[in-house]
Amino acid sequence: MTKVVIVGGVAGGMSAATRLRRLMEDAEIIVFEKGPFVSFANCGLPYYVSGEISDRDQLLVQTPERLQARFNLDVRPFHEVTAIDATNQTVTVRHDGKEFVETYDKLILSPGAKPFVPPIENIERATNVFNLRNVPDLDEIMAHIDLVQSKEAVIVGAGFIGLEMAENLVKKGLNVTIVEKAPHVLPALDEEMAAFVLQTLEANGIKVITSQSVVRFEEEGKSVVLENGDNLSSDLTILSVGIQPETTLAKEAGVTLGFRGGIVVDDHYETNLKNIYAVGDAIVVNHQISQEDALVSLASPANRQGRQVADVIAGLKRENKGSIGTAIVRVFDLSAATTGLSERIARNLGYDVSVVHTSGKDHASYYPGATDITLKLIFNAKTGQIYGAQGIGQKGVDKRIDVLATAIKGNLTIFDLPELELTYAPPFGSAKDPVNMIGYAAINIAEGLSQNIQWHELADELAKGTKLLDVRTTPEVKRGHFKDFVHIPLDNLRSRLNELDKSNTYIVSCHSGLRSYIAERLLQQEGFKVKNLDGAYSLYNAVRPKEIFHD
Amino acid sequence: MTKVVIVGGVAGGMSAATRLRRLMEDAEIIVFEKGPFVSFANCGLPYYVSGEISDRDQLLVQTPERLQARFNLDVRPFHEVTAIDATNQTVTVRHDGKEFVETYDKLILSPGAKPFVPPIENIERATNVFNLRNVPDLDEIMAHIDLVQSKEAVIVGAGFIGLEMAENLVKKGLNVTIVEKAPHVLPALDEEMAAFVLQTLEANGIKVITSQSVVRFEEEGKSVVLENGDNLSSDLTILSVGIQPETTLAKEAGVTLGFRGGIVVDDHYETNLKNIYAVGDAIVVNHQISQEDALVSLASPANRQGRQVADVIAGLKRENKGSIGTAIVRVFDLSAATTGLSERIARNLGYDVSVVHTSGKDHASYYPGATDITLKLIFNAKTGQIYGAQGIGQKGVDKRIDVLATAIKGNLTIFDLPELELTYAPPFGSAKDPVNMIGYAAINIAEGLSQNIQWHELADELAKGTKLLDVRTTPEVKRGHFKDFVHIPLDNLRSRLNELDKSNTYIVSCHSGLRSYIAERLLQQEGFKVKNLDGAYSLYNAVRPKEIFHD
Repeated sequence: MTKVVIVGGVAGGMSAATRLRRLMEDAEIIVFEKGPFVSFANCGLPYYVSGEISDRDQLLVQTPERLQARFNLDVRPFHEVTAIDATNQTVTVRHDGKEFVETYDKLILSPGAKPFVPPIENIERATNVFNLRNVPDLDEIMAHIDLVQSKEAVIVGAGFIGLEMAENLVKKGLNVTIVEKAPHVLPALDEEMAAFVLQTLEANGIKVITSQSVVRFEEEGKSVVLENGDNLSSDLTILSVGIQPETTLAKEAGVTLGFRGGIVVDDHYETNLKNIYAVGDAIVVNHQISQEDALVSLASPANRQGRQVADVIAGLKRENKGSIGTAIVRVFDLSAATTGLSERIARNLGYDVSVVHTSGKDHASYYPGATDITLKLIFNAKTGQIYGAQGIGQKGVDKRIDVLATAIKGNLTIFDLPELELTYAPPFGSAKDPVNMIGYAAINIAEGLSQNIQWHELADELAKGTKLLDVRTTPEVKRGHFKDFVHIPLDNLRSRLNELDKSNTYIVSCHSGLRSYIAERLLQQEGFKVKNLDGAYSLYNAVRPKEIFHD
Repeated sequence: MTKVVIVGGVAGGMSAATRLRRLMEDAEIIVFEKGPFVSFANCGLPYYVSGEISDRDQLLVQTPERLQARFNLDVRPFHEVTAIDATNQTVTVRHDGKEFVETYDKLILSPGAKPFVPPIENIERATNVFNLRNVPDLDEIMAHIDLVQSKEAVIVGAGFIGLEMAENLVKKGLNVTIVEKAPHVLPALDEEMAAFVLQTLEANGIKVITSQSVVRFEEEGKSVVLENGDNLSSDLTILSVGIQPETTLAKEAGVTLGFRGGIVVDDHYETNLKNIYAVGDAIVVNHQISQEDALVSLASPANRQGRQVADVIAGLKRENKGSIGTAIVRVFDLSAATTGLSERIARNLGYDVSVVHTSGKDHASYYPGATDITLKLIFNAKTGQIYGAQGIGQKGVDKRIDVLATAIKGNLTIFDLPELELTYAPPFGSAKDPVNMIGYAAINIAEGLSQNIQWHELADELAKGTKLLDVRTTPEVKRGHFKDFVHIPLDNLRSRLNELDKSNTYIVSCHSGLRSYIAERLLQQEGFKVKNLDGAYSLYNAVRPKEIFHD
């Protein structure tokens, strides 16, 4: 009879335990969890703050009793594994102030990640500073909000959890300020896509401060001091500046650590120490696009890995193929999602990067309730390889990014995207889905039919004397426009070509990029030097680089 | 200067025209459309009946004037092409009672499909029988409803358009009866999946008659007589029994027709006649899964083909890679979608077919508003090839079928489905998405960990003496159950194994199939002969085969 000990009872650990039972009915399976709860809904925690998830028990997906009854698992909360003896195959466990030793045949480490605590002066004296990684954290935050009747909240870090907390604290009635060290919120997305999120945060009354760190707490945390000397008053401060693998136990046992301190495992999740396996946020994985080492702290890969390590231990052929990293966040009425590499990372890796943005509706525009989706594709124009994709919109963003994530996993190229046959009826999509459309747009670039410039290149181009040609209608232009531009509505362009000068280069813009592309094709065929402003006015209106706008 | 004549100004034809203009600014492009409108939203027509789309102009996506201004297209409604002279490269066009001849360098046929009119006696004398393929059809239906104050509607044919019309006529206040020749509604889906749709139709007051044809109209259509002699009274009858390629013109010109009378084209959309191309519902395509000839009358492929034929004519390399056929319909609060081959068709083709059904939530169950999604996967358990997928549910069905359609296009197998990294945050999905889960379920079958039987096999199995073991809780069983069964709740199964007999074979069922699989694994490892009832009670409760239910 095999005896399997699992350290950590959340996503990876619990997936391993239940799958193991289905494969090895006679195995002894013990799960040690240092916290009070196993298998809780950690991704749901922020929604309890606002009451959107109103029942705390909803967050406790499983209990040891239920896991015992259904899976014959020996699940022990409040049990912390403090040491591993790999030679004798034992672990030391601390519970209720006492220690005991447990043997194992196979040991699975699923320790997860711990919050990265930034080096902020006086942090140890602050009484209102919290992380949010588990239910006890949540309970502390809720108690604190009630106790001090919190009004002013500061969130340090504008990643996925930071933004979810911001939304839910606003819905709880607090005034929220976000401080982000990076130049823009949601650093997993590129700047111009994150700009839409910034707009939504500000529209909901959140104050956002970027390119700033918190350097010091004063007045027991009631005053938050930034790098630039500014002070923020705070009744509640949430730290969500990132996480790091929880590997103290593994390291002390002699497990090899690698990239950013993550646990190194082979393709079968085994560490350098025989019979010791590891899964979840704590392990180093292969990024399937870059083939580089990566840490991916997402629930989906952790659950898959937990199941797969159980398969490996039960003798099934299974291999960790790595991850591409797909993520989404809802920020008020907006969804923001990403899969694969961002433009920034792809460029940093030295890839031959092309980029295209398209704007379309989540479903047929003639059917009520259609809303905008802005998609971004990051790709190689020579090979057609898709490096990554990002999406922003109120509805249907998850679907498009899921399709693109699947395309990436299937090694589909930009040339395959128009071929995708996606569900279409007016309430669901369009005959040419936004995913098909961004494929067409990328192919136009790859085949030289369109040459675009990016938002961050526009100022330099204009400085060189290039002319900006806006082909929107007059009412649209009146609602907002660039600083300097030539205006000819697209439908008049053919008859007004004589107003343009072939010695100039023109950059064409419209609202979303569809009409500007049509204008580009027309002008190019008529012998003009012309480029398309990718994403057009709507994208620039989101980013609003100062030098291009009136105010 | 190239002169391109396009016959048909809707999906395929208009996509070709606008793409051609973007590629060939100096081409002369004439579009002849025999009807009054071009580029109208034919998929939106049913929603105008109920007023869900309230503005008729919303259905008229483009006008000749706008197409002239933007694309310099010569678009001529009310122009019917009556003959093609392929040798001299001319077409004869009828307009306003007169005929004229137009030359072409390239001719694109996009004639679409016409309604199949079933051989119903007295159909020519019926004054209340309509098809719905275009705006004039819609106008006639709306006028008729107003004129006769229609109360009773009969819809002949329960395909996509028939069901959309049924819903919208109910919302308009009519009593609706559907007559379908096939044994079940929505024949594109398999019977047990369509059963959910049937439930929804009936729950919304629609009377559904299957395995019946209309044989005769009496009283100018006010009486609809069925095969079995039954009479239905009708103020309005909609025929939606299928469509056939509109190929009279092509045939008379000497264009080769093939499968079911469709136009045969090569990989570049050229017919047997030089410089004559065809796209859209009228052409024979290659089914990408079966590699058989197929007619696919869907908007998405038609639009793609239109664009591609323009590319071909402009000298770009483009190839018709065929279609897999993805479709969706909303029926009241339910969505029903399919991609690839149905089980029925895959079996008819002689494939080695395995099937699995899973049930899950559209998003995290602990987040408010989660609803059920039932998925079906049709696959080859030896190779892992995915033949097709179907989905039913209130929300998120489109997304899952889109992901599976993309997986099929990318030649991903069942072994890749768990690897898909899909967007997950509580409002959007689950850490293990339903697509991942159905992949796991299929792999369990492929690897021999689970052996399932299908709903239609159950009666035979039970007749052989196999025992049905229901592992649901007692309250669940009290709400509804099979005729004969052994009941042991899953959480008590280990302690009550002695109540089972190893000489028997057991078929395990629960509500959705998740617990029954856990029970199957347990029993199998304990030495019992056991199979899993795929889809479990919830699927059988939808189909309700008489021999297995109490009533």
